Amino acid sequence: MTRIYNFSAGPAMLPTPVMEKAQAEFLDYNNIGAGLIEISHRSKEFDEIINRTDALLTELAGIPSNYKILYVHGGAQMQFSSVPLNLINRHPSNKASYIETGVWTVKARQEAARYGNIITAASSEDTNFDRIPDFDVASLEADNSYAFITSNNTLYGTRWQSFPDTGDIPLVADMTSEFLSREIDINQFGIIFAGLQKNLGPAGLAIVIVREDLLGQALPVTPSLLDYQVYADNHSLANTNNTFAIYMMSLVLDWLKEEGGVAKMEARNNAKAKLIYDTIDSSDLYIGTAHPAHRSIMNVTFSLANNDLLGDFLAGALDRGLYALKGHRAVGGARASIYNAMPLEGCQALVDFMLEFEKSNG
Amino acid sequence: MTRIYNFSAGPAMLPTPVMEKAQAEFLDYNNIGAGLIEISHRSKEFDEIINRTDALLTELAGIPSNYKILYVHGGAQMQFSSVPLNLINRHPSNKASYIETGVWTVKARQEAARYGNIITAASSEDTNFDRIPDFDVASLEADNSYAFITSNNTLYGTRWQSFPDTGDIPLVADMTSEFLSREIDINQFGIIFAGLQKNLGPAGLAIVIVREDLLGQALPVTPSLLDYQVYADNHSLANTNNTFAIYMMSLVLDWLKEEGGVAKMEARNNAKAKLIYDTIDSSDLYIGTAHPAHRSIMNVTFSLANNDLLGDFLAGALDRGLYALKGHRAVGGARASIYNAMPLEGCQALVDFMLEFEKSNG
Repeated sequence: MTRIYNFSAGPAMLPTPVMEKAQAEFLDYNNIGAGLIEISHRSKEFDEIINRTDALLTELAGIPSNYKILYVHGGAQMQFSSVPLNLINRHPSNKASYIETGVWTVKARQEAARYGNIITAASSEDTNFDRIPDFDVASLEADNSYAFITSNNTLYGTRWQSFPDTGDIPLVADMTSEFLSREIDINQFGIIFAGLQKNLGPAGLAIVIVREDLLGQALPVTPSLLDYQVYADNHSLANTNNTFAIYMMSLVLDWLKEEGGVAKMEARNNAKAKLIYDTIDSSDLYIGTAHPAHRSIMNVTFSLANNDLLGDFLAGALDRGLYALKGHRAVGGARASIYNAMPLEGCQALVDFMLEFEKSNG
Repeated sequence: MTRIYNFSAGPAMLPTPVMEKAQAEFLDYNNIGAGLIEISHRSKEFDEIINRTDALLTELAGIPSNYKILYVHGGAQMQFSSVPLNLINRHPSNKASYIETGVWTVKARQEAARYGNIITAASSEDTNFDRIPDFDVASLEADNSYAFITSNNTLYGTRWQSFPDTGDIPLVADMTSEFLSREIDINQFGIIFAGLQKNLGPAGLAIVIVREDLLGQALPVTPSLLDYQVYADNHSLANTNNTFAIYMMSLVLDWLKEEGGVAKMEARNNAKAKLIYDTIDSSDLYIGTAHPAHRSIMNVTFSLANNDLLGDFLAGALDRGLYALKGHRAVGGARASIYNAMPLEGCQALVDFMLEFEKSNG
């Protein structure tokens, strides 16, 4: 069996050693005669896994002791509701500011508007979100309960290169498509959340890293399983959680640690992205979609000067085992999602094909 | 490798053929060179799986065409919030009635109280929920938005043997611990929901079967991903869903169909439960916890006449590969959860051990 290079934006490829280990022990975890997926979330085996996951996340992401790690239902998008439900009440203004960098931030803002007064502090919608908009942090009024950003924009291939210092206003960041792909100072954020299915594990779960002083302020209409305090009080086991996803994440984190940690991964991701961006920038056929100063190292978006060639390009790529390169319909063109699990060899194979295709269609 | 007999209340054992198939194709689904867990929820492979799961559920459970199947985040407990958020508004009274048969119904009632006027229509709390309480359906006032039951009570080993006819008031049933274990007339219910991790698949997802006329009435504060209409409009893919859980469920349903369907399974479950109940009823050591007229065929609860022997009983069982027989702390004693995936041989092995243990400790 040959593993393809899977450029899917998510659910995304997982490291092959992780997949092999999960397969090997699928029917018989730790010689107990049952799979991990079949046993209780209250078992000592699962208890060991969730504790180990906490420890690995803390170490790899450098999570300070005044933050809690939560494993929450519903993926990142459920946090579009949970964040305002838990935080909008912080200030009597019931106000929060969103800096729009794509449809996910727009969706987050629309959902938050159910619960408070939501301000669009800046937006790059007028250029179809091809960049992070200019944003003057001084324009944030002090009575904001929080400020919200999406740190990496999967659809558009942009990211915040550095983060605004919002001072006393907690900064909330959706880091779904880049968490643990580059070094971050957690202290800059009140809340970081991320769905697992890009860099962390399979779909169906998200993690929330929340500063402790932000807990305990949920609106009365907050469903219990959207209340971060309930997760913090119950080690995320107020009800049966997605045990298999947490287990898979523990294996991904083991792998990340063995690979040298986040700094090492960031260097590798920079090299991977550079390979493709350099090819785009020296080509007449490929056109980068994102503004060069705002390029993501997780999602590389580009169009073809002759869009009629896109179908042939995608089909040719697939023939070479380069899977899921079609861009999102909001942007068109092609997109290579190159999360931590994508090896440099996958990016090299893509670049080789891009050069070959350009030559044949020059 | 010997597979244990796993009597866990949930996450519970899955059929061995299902586990073997999932393991075999874990790294390479359908020869695509990637695992199902690693590919997009928008891929044609996953699309085929979710459509097949719909079809299998419809066939096996006999779901009429005026019901929708939803795959929802958060497990059954999230539905404790979603049900009132979606239904309490049906009638201006904002009223619903709960028939309490255990701590799960109590939790469901408490959560619903955030959103409306919730009535405890009957309760068996005074006998520690060892039975389904007497309930006169005529006592339900016509202005109830819905009535709520838990059809099988995992902790206590009781179940509704038949269901109250609530007429025009939609009956909502949490069937987490028995869905597809016995034949049910779906038409008796407005909504049925069930977490997967007992009879249907792994933890981290629930299904909701909802009569179409009950959609579209959610309260304005309802988070989008708790709004059943949003799921119905997007084939449960408004955001990335737990694709692996849906895939595992599709395999469980394939297996159930091959085994002969729900009627066949119900007969087998009756025989399995009878084996254990007969042993209890003819013993001086074992005492059934649930009232005999209300016994569950999914969870068999019993205590030991001499409670000091419980530790030895559980340890001896474990030595024989009979796993997770400890009762829930709310009831004590022992509990054998014998969902669809538990073979008759597992129940026979338990009974053999029970007889042997009683003899040694007589």
